[in-house]
Amino acid sequence: MKLFSFWRSLATFRVRIALNLKGITPDEVIDVNLMQGKQREEAFRKINPMMALPALIEDDGTVLFESLAILEYLDETHPNPPLLPRGAKARARVRGLAQIIACDTHPLIVPRVREYLAHEFKVDEEGVLRWGHHWHTQALQALEANLAVSPHTGRYCQGDQITIADICLAGQAAGSSYFKVDLAPYPTVKRIVDTCMAIDAFARAHPLKQPGAPASL
Amino acid sequence: MKLFSFWRSLATFRVRIALNLKGITPDEVIDVNLMQGKQREEAFRKINPMMALPALIEDDGTVLFESLAILEYLDETHPNPPLLPRGAKARARVRGLAQIIACDTHPLIVPRVREYLAHEFKVDEEGVLRWGHHWHTQALQALEANLAVSPHTGRYCQGDQITIADICLAGQAAGSSYFKVDLAPYPTVKRIVDTCMAIDAFARAHPLKQPGAPASL
Repeated sequence: MKLFSFWRSLATFRVRIALNLKGITPDEVIDVNLMQGKQREEAFRKINPMMALPALIEDDGTVLFESLAILEYLDETHPNPPLLPRGAKARARVRGLAQIIACDTHPLIVPRVREYLAHEFKVDEEGVLRWGHHWHTQALQALEANLAVSPHTGRYCQGDQITIADICLAGQAAGSSYFKVDLAPYPTVKRIVDTCMAIDAFARAHPLKQPGAPASL
Repeated sequence: MKLFSFWRSLATFRVRIALNLKGITPDEVIDVNLMQGKQREEAFRKINPMMALPALIEDDGTVLFESLAILEYLDETHPNPPLLPRGAKARARVRGLAQIIACDTHPLIVPRVREYLAHEFKVDEEGVLRWGHHWHTQALQALEANLAVSPHTGRYCQGDQITIADICLAGQAAGSSYFKVDLAPYPTVKRIVDTCMAIDAFARAHPLKQPGAPASL
């Protein structure tokens, strides 16, 4: 199994956490430097025409793309420990929370979008930071509103089992730090993230622990 | 079952297609007028703090949100006809294609983002149209690149079975028409969309067939 990765990619952070939780070590981790635009070069474009990280190549050559699809794949092919609860309603809540982050929020702050704002709309650095701050805040408010009152919230987003919602929440928290968003106003989010980040599988997967990452942001 | 819907919402279009394919008729369809900002009012905010459509309330009061999570829920609770293939790799491809649309593209062109661009960055109408056109084109190029060469593409995105990838592709095509993006340069996408839209479950779910919709765009 080969993983295409970059230290800063939050979507790849999700996949790294899942791999660690499942005890899977990729045979190779291939660096695609998003800051140098390597995801747009022909070599990677052939792997994933969407030119986005992560991508995973299975031993038979099958290419997997989109982080949530990869998480579900890893859960189906390596069921222990499970990353989704059993009941359909619980699964829907976990997937819904994950998608607030992975669909409604993260795609708005990825490099290609920030670059479009800067180049096409001439938004300055402060404006791009404000943009990122805004969408992160919207997501954190929605997540806190759900997590703080739901009877299904436990040690983690859904009861006491680590799920893909927690994996996405850890990525959300890392992304919030990129945009200087304080988690203090979102105490349930912060509690769950802190609980997750104390776990080795999460901590080792953190962007700042990857090759090429700076010591701090 | 209650469905919160708006004619123009592409994410709700996805859920309507799935409901039709599964032969489920919601007891009530509640209109949330996105053009009037009704999704931000307290009544709907209590249902979905993310203030986005669709939302689905089950008979026991369980609230479901995020269209892909709802599609998976409907598939788990009403397995026939299935909306995902059987093999893990095929499922990953279907989910990946769906997520190119539902994660990487559609969230960029929803009302709240268009409104932010207009109000905060003073992007004019032509600029917002260009923005929508750009992201649709990026997605269509990536989807065509995958669908045109993959040996797994058949009558539909994955073989001859309708899946959530086709459902999302139909939404992508409807969204592309909002932004005047021609599908002609993407013949495989267009062929699959045309095949889908000839099916009653897709055709009846189309935005322009919903209460309150204009005769054309």
